[in-house]
Amino acid sequence: MLRQASTTITIRASRPGLQEITSDVREFVNESGFREGLLTAFCSHTSASLLIQENAAPAARRDLEFYFERIAPEGGPYEHDDERSDDMPAHLRSALTATQLSIPVAHGRPVLGRWQGIFLFEHRRGTPERQIALHLIGE
Amino acid sequence: MLRQASTTITIRASRPGLQEITSDVREFVNESGFREGLLTAFCSHTSASLLIQENAAPAARRDLEFYFERIAPEGGPYEHDDERSDDMPAHLRSALTATQLSIPVAHGRPVLGRWQGIFLFEHRRGTPERQIALHLIGE
Amino acid sequence: MLRQASTTITIRASRPGLQEITSDVREFVNESGFREGLLTAFCSHTSASLLIQENAAPAARRDLEFYFERIAPEGGPYEHDDERSDDMPAHLRSALTATQLSIPVAHGRPVLGRWQGIFLFEHRRGTPERQIALHLIGE
Repeated sequence: MLRQASTTITIRASRPGLQEITSDVREFVNESGFREGLLTAFCSHTSASLLIQENAAPAARRDLEFYFERIAPEGGPYEHDDERSDDMPAHLRSALTATQLSIPVAHGRPVLGRWQGIFLFEHRRGTPERQIALHLIGE
Repeated sequence: MLRQASTTITIRASRPGLQEITSDVREFVNESGFREGLLTAFCSHTSASLLIQENAAPAARRDLEFYFERIAPEGGPYEHDDERSDDMPAHLRSALTATQLSIPVAHGRPVLGRWQGIFLFEHRRGTPERQIALHLIGE
Repeated sequence: MLRQASTTITIRASRPGLQEITSDVREFVNESGFREGLLTAFCSHTSASLLIQENAAPAARRDLEFYFERIAPEGGPYEHDDERSDDMPAHLRSALTATQLSIPVAHGRPVLGRWQGIFLFEHRRGTPERQIALHLIGE
């Protein structure tokens, strides 16, 4: 019989950039006891986002962070500047990545590839607390 | 008992750029009477897309539109030019943003953050009519 | 009665770039015999991604490939270089596009627009074999 489960996890990144949340997501799937289904993670913010990326090489992670700093830089020609200078770039970097990810679950686990990790991509300094809604449907 | 609902909404943006559709999506969720579930919005076009962004500051919205005009400009080195000059940039901007968004529903509402709105991102001039498929599964 | 189906398809792109997989996805939906539901495709890699784009004009496809070669080039200022020179750009291009797509199913078919095709976006040379997990929930 199909059923649902949901929760909200709170993440505080230690700094701007990629913070892996794979284990938080796996824990929710484990505790919910689903064998087959669809897991959805939804980031309830417009200045942080989600990304599935390589979980192995720290250098790849730094390159990725640096790349988004370059293509959506602070100090760009932005009209919206009544919040801090990292606000508008944060919206742009969020728009270029994902607010939501859905991952099939099989044999009780999200079907992540061997090198895939799930990351919160924090785009602001001051590391606010972030809410990520998790939803699972299946059996 | 889990069940499904679906519909298609038609949106005509008044101009290229971001057009908020949050209330259309909320209305579908309300009328379907689901308390918990997963809502999916799917844009059936390759020159318009979907985006979750800040619903408060109009300047942030203009900055976001202007940013995509800069990084995927009209008049770029495009081979595909048998449609109008806004066609190829529209495909690129669509590729960089989302064709589909899924949002968990809890207590009868999509779990959008306080500042999050759902937007159709119209990338072409002449504002064609756009179809967005909505699907809800849950109970 | 709602139910689920899932499978994994293996794709080997003949070269880097967009490779259409719409017919593979449609075949899974057909064989599963669902009339209404939600189809999810998930790419289990960090150097290939998914994209819904125009399925008609080959020039538009080439422009799209060339665009991503320009904005996330080989030979950029990357720290991560212990794999081949096409590795880091592949991660960046994956981050800019989609790892996962969900498409409502109605009347036994994914509700793709007339010009929409589903593509594997292969970002590496040497065309490794790629796994795409497909999941369907509905009835």
